[in-house]
Amino acid sequence: MGTRTARTVADSRATLTHLTVPTDANFMGNVFGGVILSEVDRVAYITATRHSGLNCVTASFDRVDFIAPVRLGEVATFQSRLTFVGHTSMEVWVEVHTEALAGGPRRLVGNAFVTMVAVGSDGHPAPVRELELTTPEERRLFEEGRARMEARKRSRQPPTPKEKEGER
Amino acid sequence: MGTRTARTVADSRATLTHLTVPTDANFMGNVFGGVILSEVDRVAYITATRHSGLNCVTASFDRVDFIAPVRLGEVATFQSRLTFVGHTSMEVWVEVHTEALAGGPRRLVGNAFVTMVAVGSDGHPAPVRELELTTPEERRLFEEGRARMEARKRSRQPPTPKEKEGER
Amino acid sequence: MGTRTARTVADSRATLTHLTVPTDANFMGNVFGGVILSEVDRVAYITATRHSGLNCVTASFDRVDFIAPVRLGEVATFQSRLTFVGHTSMEVWVEVHTEALAGGPRRLVGNAFVTMVAVGSDGHPAPVRELELTTPEERRLFEEGRARMEARKRSRQPPTPKEKEGER
Amino acid sequence: MGTRTARTVADSRATLTHLTVPTDANFMGNVFGGVILSEVDRVAYITATRHSGLNCVTASFDRVDFIAPVRLGEVATFQSRLTFVGHTSMEVWVEVHTEALAGGPRRLVGNAFVTMVAVGSDGHPAPVRELELTTPEERRLFEEGRARMEARKRSRQPPTPKEKEGER
Amino acid sequence: MGTRTARTVADSRATLTHLTVPTDANFMGNVFGGVILSEVDRVAYITATRHSGLNCVTASFDRVDFIAPVRLGEVATFQSRLTFVGHTSMEVWVEVHTEALAGGPRRLVGNAFVTMVAVGSDGHPAPVRELELTTPEERRLFEEGRARMEARKRSRQPPTPKEKEGER
Amino acid sequence: MGTRTARTVADSRATLTHLTVPTDANFMGNVFGGVILSEVDRVAYITATRHSGLNCVTASFDRVDFIAPVRLGEVATFQSRLTFVGHTSMEVWVEVHTEALAGGPRRLVGNAFVTMVAVGSDGHPAPVRELELTTPEERRLFEEGRARMEARKRSRQPPTPKEKEGER
Repeated sequence: MGTRTARTVADSRATLTHLTVPTDANFMGNVFGGVILSEVDRVAYITATRHSGLNCVTASFDRVDFIAPVRLGEVATFQSRLTFVGHTSMEVWVEVHTEALAGGPRRLVGNAFVTMVAVGSDGHPAPVRELELTTPEERRLFEEGRARMEARKRSRQPPTPKEKEGER
Repeated sequence: MGTRTARTVADSRATLTHLTVPTDANFMGNVFGGVILSEVDRVAYITATRHSGLNCVTASFDRVDFIAPVRLGEVATFQSRLTFVGHTSMEVWVEVHTEALAGGPRRLVGNAFVTMVAVGSDGHPAPVRELELTTPEERRLFEEGRARMEARKRSRQPPTPKEKEGER
Repeated sequence: MGTRTARTVADSRATLTHLTVPTDANFMGNVFGGVILSEVDRVAYITATRHSGLNCVTASFDRVDFIAPVRLGEVATFQSRLTFVGHTSMEVWVEVHTEALAGGPRRLVGNAFVTMVAVGSDGHPAPVRELELTTPEERRLFEEGRARMEARKRSRQPPTPKEKEGER
Repeated sequence: MGTRTARTVADSRATLTHLTVPTDANFMGNVFGGVILSEVDRVAYITATRHSGLNCVTASFDRVDFIAPVRLGEVATFQSRLTFVGHTSMEVWVEVHTEALAGGPRRLVGNAFVTMVAVGSDGHPAPVRELELTTPEERRLFEEGRARMEARKRSRQPPTPKEKEGER
Repeated sequence: MGTRTARTVADSRATLTHLTVPTDANFMGNVFGGVILSEVDRVAYITATRHSGLNCVTASFDRVDFIAPVRLGEVATFQSRLTFVGHTSMEVWVEVHTEALAGGPRRLVGNAFVTMVAVGSDGHPAPVRELELTTPEERRLFEEGRARMEARKRSRQPPTPKEKEGER
Repeated sequence: MGTRTARTVADSRATLTHLTVPTDANFMGNVFGGVILSEVDRVAYITATRHSGLNCVTASFDRVDFIAPVRLGEVATFQSRLTFVGHTSMEVWVEVHTEALAGGPRRLVGNAFVTMVAVGSDGHPAPVRELELTTPEERRLFEEGRARMEARKRSRQPPTPKEKEGER
């Protein structure tokens, strides 16, 4: 696929916003981590699908930092943008901010890098169009993303303990 | 409350976005009306709470038009803004748009006017700050909102049939 | 369609009842508006489907009044009946009552008028059978419903502000 | 507690109705058993609470028969009535019927006997008022309920196998 | 079907475990009965499907004892095993234990016998393979299960009252 | 805290099992990533809470690999064990396997490292007891976990682009 069909980072940016409600609460009265992770997964899916025009599946969450708890009744905003695009995979960076309804500062509460893979109609990974980089910052993020992907490939496989005793 | 504490329409605008998922489906494969109405209620709640700085309750949905069905897998955006502010009540206008992930035009699929009432710590309606109007359009919408509210007050109460036979 | 196939108001009346549970709660400990609206939508759907024998979609919520909050642990009853039937659309009147488990009076907490449209197998609006009116009250409600529908048709379209900044 | 405070069977009858929706579906396209059992539990809870005026907990489901599958889009009706009242426990009989929206016969799809126990403010079982029987049928059902309760008390405890090997 | 294709009790044992969360709560702050019953249904379904290799439906819950309440934040374990296998039906015994996260003893909180029926591709009950019994305890449980099934067949049908007055 | 109060890896192992159901489905008919991540979060929470005896919060998901899709109707097993314990934080390794009901091999479908932090009654991170290592493999995993934690601390903070236009 040539530069002709490339899309910019801005073309596939996406935002989801969510008013946290009582059913999202965990045992400490904060928003349950699973609620946050589900929305991170969804917004990354939107960005990857918009860029590739193909159906996408989550390959990995490479790093999710829960920087501060999300409190009930806050509005959480999930913003996603592509950082790196390989042959069939895309790295999406998702930031999570919250804002109290009563006002006050917008807080960064979470940060994640998600790798999505495009899937063709045959169910196999499919090549995706190039990412057109338009600013120095986008170029820096692309190189950092490439480094993370290469580190992942080099990294050892998950350990496979031999003694797998009965579960409790 | 004086002009000093008034807030503009822009100060309390809010947006929620929602990726529709299979569990949102109704019998025709479109997004269930209840899912749409819940989000309309939430985004109107955010706007009313932001403007008043008080807890708010929904008094009425004065008009909800479902202009076109929302399809599964679309991203729905709910945008709310104040049109009219009375002594203790606020009229919020919510527009719902959707966008297919694969691209294509953004469609207006729903439109609603919701009246929210601010509630004080004593559980009774509480006065809210004034709405500062900054454009001719905001002034026009304010007058239209005032007319709707007056029409609601004049409108006959819901009919109360005498023959209330056993339910089926 | 002739009088021969008409059905009475009683033929399509419907009732749904719901025991409110903790997951229905909003931030003030009352039942979340979305839970109420979802049930209103469902019971109106049952009435419209029963009358028309066709699949139906919600065209609009023309007026929803939240007269009093619904408290957790109350039994809410949603009763629907047709008021007006046009060529392809039907106006359904839904009343919501609650009753405390411990006894005490049944309270009217909500009232709504919902317009449903019958849909044929081609996906387009389809004509529905006539409504047979059997009491003076039904005739009065029918005329009131007809007046509401005509007012809706006359009413201005939703305002379309020019300054609508992009938000994705 | 004397006859003076007794309540009739009719005093605590209850009905819940539920429009089955796609999220209720099991793997065969019918309504998931858990959805049915949850509603049976809720309607029995309403009847026991109405009779006793006390909070109640489910002690046992003594027999639940799934007579026919519930199909998506049907309206399911759960009707409960007391059959037997002991010192602190109550036997509630729940019948489940469904009706297709398109019309056709009402079908009996489930039948259950649930034993609820009243709980006092100290968290222990609390005595409940007597059940006033007004028809020969109610007296017959009361004796049958008493027989079931005595059979339950006589019945052997659940077997406790010695070899409790590791779970899979 | 011969002994050749029989499977042992151990072959189809199953376990589900569930961390109870705030949305599972009932009005007393304990886990809602419906949550427990849904998991009992699911684990019995797994055991019946594993034994028969066929799709299965729940025919009845023959006895569910709620021995002690399940508290929020506990880990609940649902263990199922076959006790009796007839021509097309299987009796599954499910035990429910909970364990506090902070440690302390594992408590038996529930016990149930569920009858599942295998269903062939024609939608009718289908014969299932024999159950191979390997211990004296399994043989004893099988005879007890057979006795319960025969008692169920002998038991009177659910009473059908003649006076079915209008519901409340 | 001394060796005296240390606990072994086996002491806090945990397992959750989940029968995937239709409401878990994503757009491709597989189990939605959010469902998987929620269970990973829950089982890691159990292990961290069991080890520390304190309430715990998720600090980060350091790596989640979705090795293969989870299909509807499969039984998913989430197994967690501690790999590394620092002053107030714990690294939990979670493996996800699935098994078709009809039999066939157990497949490894997911793998995750989650960092949990113990929280004292003052809401601040609290020291946790030591992890007693009993096998060479546990010692190897501990060193690998320590290396991952040190790499995380060294890693650059998430990039903070300057051109971050306002989005509410």
